[in-house]
Amino acid sequence: MTQVYDKVALIGLGLIAGSMAHAMREGGLAGRITGYARSAETRDTARQIALCEVCDSAAEAVAGADLVVLAVPVGAMADVMTQITPHLAPGVTITDVGSVKQSVIDAVTPHLPAGAHFIPGHPLAGTEHSGPRAGFASLFRNRWWLLTPLPDTDPDALARLDRLITAMGAKTDRMDAAHHDLVLAVTSHAPHLIAYTMVGVADHLRRVSGEEVIQYSAAGFRDFTRIAASDPTMWRDVFLHNKEATLDILGRFTEELFVLQRAIRMGDGQQLHDYFTRTRAIRRGIIEAGQDTEAPDFGRTPGARPAG
Amino acid sequence: MTQVYDKVALIGLGLIAGSMAHAMREGGLAGRITGYARSAETRDTARQIALCEVCDSAAEAVAGADLVVLAVPVGAMADVMTQITPHLAPGVTITDVGSVKQSVIDAVTPHLPAGAHFIPGHPLAGTEHSGPRAGFASLFRNRWWLLTPLPDTDPDALARLDRLITAMGAKTDRMDAAHHDLVLAVTSHAPHLIAYTMVGVADHLRRVSGEEVIQYSAAGFRDFTRIAASDPTMWRDVFLHNKEATLDILGRFTEELFVLQRAIRMGDGQQLHDYFTRTRAIRRGIIEAGQDTEAPDFGRTPGARPAG
Ligand SMILES: NC(=O)c1ccc[n+]([C@@H]2O[C@H](COP(=O)([O-])OP(=O)(O)OC[C@H]3O[C@@H](n4cnc5c(N)ncnc54)[C@H](OP(=O)(O)O)[C@@H]3O)[C@@H](O)[C@H]2O)c1
Ligand SMILES: NC(=O)c1ccc[n+]([C@@H]2O[C@H](COP(=O)([O-])OP(=O)(O)OC[C@H]3O[C@@H](n4cnc5c(N)ncnc54)[C@H](OP(=O)(O)O)[C@@H]3O)[C@@H](O)[C@H]2O)c1
Repeated sequence: MTQVYDKVALIGLGLIAGSMAHAMREGGLAGRITGYARSAETRDTARQIALCEVCDSAAEAVAGADLVVLAVPVGAMADVMTQITPHLAPGVTITDVGSVKQSVIDAVTPHLPAGAHFIPGHPLAGTEHSGPRAGFASLFRNRWWLLTPLPDTDPDALARLDRLITAMGAKTDRMDAAHHDLVLAVTSHAPHLIAYTMVGVADHLRRVSGEEVIQYSAAGFRDFTRIAASDPTMWRDVFLHNKEATLDILGRFTEELFVLQRAIRMGDGQQLHDYFTRTRAIRRGIIEAGQDTEAPDFGRTPGARPAG
Repeated sequence: MTQVYDKVALIGLGLIAGSMAHAMREGGLAGRITGYARSAETRDTARQIALCEVCDSAAEAVAGADLVVLAVPVGAMADVMTQITPHLAPGVTITDVGSVKQSVIDAVTPHLPAGAHFIPGHPLAGTEHSGPRAGFASLFRNRWWLLTPLPDTDPDALARLDRLITAMGAKTDRMDAAHHDLVLAVTSHAPHLIAYTMVGVADHLRRVSGEEVIQYSAAGFRDFTRIAASDPTMWRDVFLHNKEATLDILGRFTEELFVLQRAIRMGDGQQLHDYFTRTRAIRRGIIEAGQDTEAPDFGRTPGARPAG
C-alpha cells in the first residue's frame, strides 16, 4: 500500500480513532500519526500501547497535519474546533467520524479557516466497547463508511480521503447529511434507545423479582444488553444531536407497538403471524446485502458451533 | 455416558427436537429415538438426514416410549396430547420444551393418563433458525434448562429427566411456572416483540426512503433483524399464551420509553447519561453469570477479529 497522507492527527483516542491508527499503520497509509485525548489517563494508556505519537495538546497534534480526524462524541466537535482552528496547516483536510452528520456540519463549519477542506464522514462499524484499548485494525473491513460532503467540496481532497478509507478496508458511499440522519435514526439510533429502555425495565424488575432476570437472560434480551452497554456519553450526544429524526422514528415505533399489543390482547393470531412473516423478509435483504452472516448466533457459548 | 431412557419419542421435529436427537445420539443417552412431525415434508427431510426413526403418526412414535418430548409450538400442545394420550405406555414421562409454561401445563394436564409423569421444561437455548435441519448437538451446552415441576411430581422421574438434560450439556434449575413466565416475558418475549416492531417500522420506511435502510443496516438494527427472523408460528403462540405477563412488561416498557423520549425532547442530557450508565451494570452482571461473552460482536464480518 502507498502512503496517502504525510501526517494524520487523531483528535480523540477511543475505539474509532484507535482502530484507524492500527489500520493506517498496518497499511502504511500515513507518514506520521499523532493523537490527542482530553484526559491524561487516556493519553497515558495510548502511549503505553504505542497507539500513535501522543501529544499533550490538540494544537500540537494538528500542527503540520494534512489530515485531521475528529473522533470525539458528537457534542464535543465544536469545542475541539475551537482548540485546533488557530493551529491548522493551510490546505488541511478535516473529517469527522460522528454518528450524526447535520449537527456536526453545523458545529464545525463556522470554525473552518479559509482553504481548509471539511468532509464529514461516518464509519458504520463499531463495537460496544470504547476507549483507547478497544480499537483493532480490521474494524472497518467490508463495512460501509458514509461521506456526506458539502456541495462545494474540493474533488481532489474528497478523492484522497476516499483512498485512505478504502485502503483501511471499508466501502465508501456518499449521501446527503439529512438523509443520513434519518436512515441512521432507523437503523441505529432508535434501536439503541429501545435497547437501553428494555434493559432499564429489566433493571427495575430485577429489584422486584430477583436476580433471575440476569441469571436466565435469554436470546433477545442478551443482545439488547450488549447494545445497551455502549458508551453513555457517545449515545447521549447522538440522541440530543439527532433529536428530530430519532423522535420521529420513536413515534412511529410506539404506534406500531400499540397495534401489536392490541393484537395480543384481542388474541388476533393471524395479524401477529402476518407481521412476523413480513419482518423475516427484511432479514433476508440484510444478509443478501452482506451486512450480516446467516450463521446462527443465539447460543453464543464457548463450545457452541462457531459462527461462520 | 450411559443410556438414560430406552426409547425417547420426539413430537415435532424442529430446531429443539433435532438438537435433542443429535445430542442424545452423541451421548448414547437413549436406546432408540423415534420422531413425528405434522407435515410429510418435515418427516421426509428428517428421514433424509437420519435425524431419528421417523414415524408416520404420533401414536406410532410414542408407543412403548419411556420418555415423550413435546417439541411443537406452545399452541399445539393440547392437540398433540389428544393424538398421543391413548397410545402412551404405562409410567411414561412426558416433558415439553415450550417457551411458556403455565399455559402448557393447563393444556397438557387434563389429557394425562393415570400414572404418567408430566414434567414441564424450557431450554434457554435457540437460534433464529427453525425446522429439522436447524438442530445441532451442542445447542444446549452450558445453557440453562428450566424445569417447572408440579407439586406432586415423582422425584425419581424428575431425577431421571434431570440426568438426561445434564448429559446433553445443559444446566438445570427449578422454578414456579408463573414466575418462569414473568422472567421470560422480561428476558425474551417482550424483547422479541420489540425487535419485530422496530423491524416493521424500518420496513415501512424502506418503502418511503429507499433501500438504504437495508443497505446501511448498522449495529443495533442488525441484531434486531436477527431476532425478528425467528419463526412466526412459534412467536405468535408465545405471545398469545403468555399474554398477561407480556402485556404487563410492554406497558412498563412504553412508560419508560416515554420518559426517555421526553428527556431527548427537553434536551436533558444528564438524565440520559445516568440512565445509560445504569444499564451498563446489567450487562456486566450477564457476563459474570456466564450467559454471554465479552467479545465485541458488532463488527460481525467475515475477516473481522473472531469472537472469543
Ligand atoms: N462506537 C461506535 O460504535 C461508533 C461507530 C461509528 C461512529 N462513532 C462515533 O465516533 C466518535 C468517537 O466514538 P468512539 O466509539 O471512538 O468513542 P470512545 O471510545 O468513547 O472515545 C472517545 C474519545 O473522545 C475523547 N473526547 C471526548 N470529549 C472530548 C473533548 N471535549 N476533547 C477532546 N477529546 C474528547 C475521549 O477522551 P477521554 O478518553 O480522555 O475522555 C476519547 O478519547 C463519536 O462521535 C461516535 O459517535 C462511534
Ligand atoms: N427456537 C427457539 O429459540 C426455542 C428455544 C426454546 C424453546 N423453544 C420452544 O420449542 C418448541 C419448538 O420450537 P422449535 O424452535 O423447535 O420449532 P420449529 O423448528 O419451528 O419446529 C416445530 C416443529 O413442530 C411441528 N408441529 C407444529 N405444529 C404441530 C402439530 N400440531 N402437531 C405435530 N407437530 C407440529 C412442526 O412440524 P412441521 O415442520 O411439519 O410444521 C415442526 O416439526 C416451541 O414450543 C418453542 O416455544 C424454542
